[in-house]
Amino acid sequence: MSTLRRDPITGRWVINTDRTKDTSSSLTEMEKLSKKGICPFCEGNEKYTPSEIFALRNEGSEKDKPGWQVRVVPNISPALRVEGELDRRAELMYDLMNSVGAHEIIIEIPQHILNLADLEASQIQKVLRAYKERIQDLKKDKRFRSVVIFKNHGERAGTSAIKHTHSQLIALSITPKNLKEELKGAKEYYDYKQRCVYCDIIRQELTTKKRIVSTNPHFVAICPFASRFSHEVWILPKKHSVDFEQIDEELGLSLAALLKEVLLRLKISLDDPPYVFVLHSGPNRTFRRGGAWKTLEEDYHWHVEIMPGYARTGGIEWGTGFYIDSTTPEKAAENLRKVKI
Amino acid sequence: MSTLRRDPITGRWVINTDRTKDTSSSLTEMEKLSKKGICPFCEGNEKYTPSEIFALRNEGSEKDKPGWQVRVVPNISPALRVEGELDRRAELMYDLMNSVGAHEIIIEIPQHILNLADLEASQIQKVLRAYKERIQDLKKDKRFRSVVIFKNHGERAGTSAIKHTHSQLIALSITPKNLKEELKGAKEYYDYKQRCVYCDIIRQELTTKKRIVSTNPHFVAICPFASRFSHEVWILPKKHSVDFEQIDEELGLSLAALLKEVLLRLKISLDDPPYVFVLHSGPNRTFRRGGAWKTLEEDYHWHVEIMPGYARTGGIEWGTGFYIDSTTPEKAAENLRKVKI
Repeated sequence: MSTLRRDPITGRWVINTDRTKDTSSSLTEMEKLSKKGICPFCEGNEKYTPSEIFALRNEGSEKDKPGWQVRVVPNISPALRVEGELDRRAELMYDLMNSVGAHEIIIEIPQHILNLADLEASQIQKVLRAYKERIQDLKKDKRFRSVVIFKNHGERAGTSAIKHTHSQLIALSITPKNLKEELKGAKEYYDYKQRCVYCDIIRQELTTKKRIVSTNPHFVAICPFASRFSHEVWILPKKHSVDFEQIDEELGLSLAALLKEVLLRLKISLDDPPYVFVLHSGPNRTFRRGGAWKTLEEDYHWHVEIMPGYARTGGIEWGTGFYIDSTTPEKAAENLRKVKI
Repeated sequence: MSTLRRDPITGRWVINTDRTKDTSSSLTEMEKLSKKGICPFCEGNEKYTPSEIFALRNEGSEKDKPGWQVRVVPNISPALRVEGELDRRAELMYDLMNSVGAHEIIIEIPQHILNLADLEASQIQKVLRAYKERIQDLKKDKRFRSVVIFKNHGERAGTSAIKHTHSQLIALSITPKNLKEELKGAKEYYDYKQRCVYCDIIRQELTTKKRIVSTNPHFVAICPFASRFSHEVWILPKKHSVDFEQIDEELGLSLAALLKEVLLRLKISLDDPPYVFVLHSGPNRTFRRGGAWKTLEEDYHWHVEIMPGYARTGGIEWGTGFYIDSTTPEKAAENLRKVKI
């Protein structure tokens, strides 16, 4: 059984899976498929994945059969499992709980394409619709305090052996530390200034222009002032909004178009770099109203963070928590702006 | 000029170096040397590094000449510079300051050896003495709130092209986020229990024994309960102490012996993995007495963290701040204990 263990000093939670036991068979299965040249995420190979949780499908097509546009399946070797109770408990001075949660794979296209950047905007819009549906569904489950969607692109970025473009979703029983820090910082800023810090950033960036990568009527893409990684890009909705899953079809297409553009600019400018992208959306508020979330509607602002070539962290980052970025975001934004797409 | 930039949401500081400008020449120089088969860290090649800041030397030997045992030089392409004022300032809504600090290289042995694990304990003791001397010296400078020493071993762990075993030192004008979190967590624990959390961990681990890698009279090496990485190891002094630089010769040799043993166990068990090690020592208290540091002498406890093969972070870690460890620390400790050295 996987557990969530709490570091007694910093309060950081770690998912402990002991994969040596329970996934050797399934991982080997995937590797065997890869060696045979079979991609389990391609249309027609549905039998190689667990049964689908959700799919956007052509009319008349059947579950776990061809005819889908975007398909969501459970991770074959999940870090978290949906079944069971949290069972929060102690082991002498330490704290742990069962790692109950969801770990899903969003297969972004039926064809064997490797980079989200190469999909049509209309297809990316469907991917975003799948994100939205899954988040809305999972946030009904009061055990889950947050749902995080992310993507590892390229070999250095992740460990998955499957190259067919896909994203991952994790629903967690605790608010992730990263989101907690953002929520806390945004709330402090709001308490002090009575303004959303993200809205202030957008306003300032649109005025000074020097860190803008691109904009469209609904979204803005910037290289953030304190970029951790060279050519890091954030995409933010211009209109204040806490939860990604509130976007409508128009916003979805607008975001899809800008996301594609940014990923293409990164691909061309940096020669198809590995990247991680993470969707930062508000926490699940169904389990607790008022109190801690009192000002959340005003102070948090969902966004997407894209970190190219990020794997180059070393002792400085681990030792200090400081990141060293060897390109100024102003220069990075300029590089990305001048790419011809 | 490098700057320290503050993320307006989380307060995280980033060192922005713009290396494209000022280090192309020096980096190329190092690469050229490497291609010629010249190691600038080997005895006899002192002229290829900046002038030494500190060295343990054979009697009668001269500065920047052969005859040293451990040698400390400025980093040829430093992320921080010692000269100048911090000049804390704003750029509209953003906060930044000059990245004043020290960035030094500790060359651990005159011979071309690649892994600290392969040094004699008596040589590692000298390396630790150099750490101690440099920390003591730099903490006299009130501009520096903390001094962090770390080491990137193996290609995947860092970006340095030089393989000759060396550590790095960074002195910073702000307390690093990682240390801040530890200080805060340790203080909260102390305020609640009136005991040091690290002392409690040591006591419990020595009792349950299941996460012990090795012990000696002065130190204990454990796989921490909430390990972020498979086979992560912490080495802690059994006797409560805030600052590493207070160790005497006896403790130094004792730590050197255990550090060597742990690194050897990792090397043998995991087939010479890349690793990062970070020395976590108390912050510089010369610039501010009392107040924030009131209970520090009782609640913080210096230690060493060793993270093997750590580079495998991906979207989950970046998206959530959760780490996924696929080996239980109990199993990892067992693996490391049974290595024959």
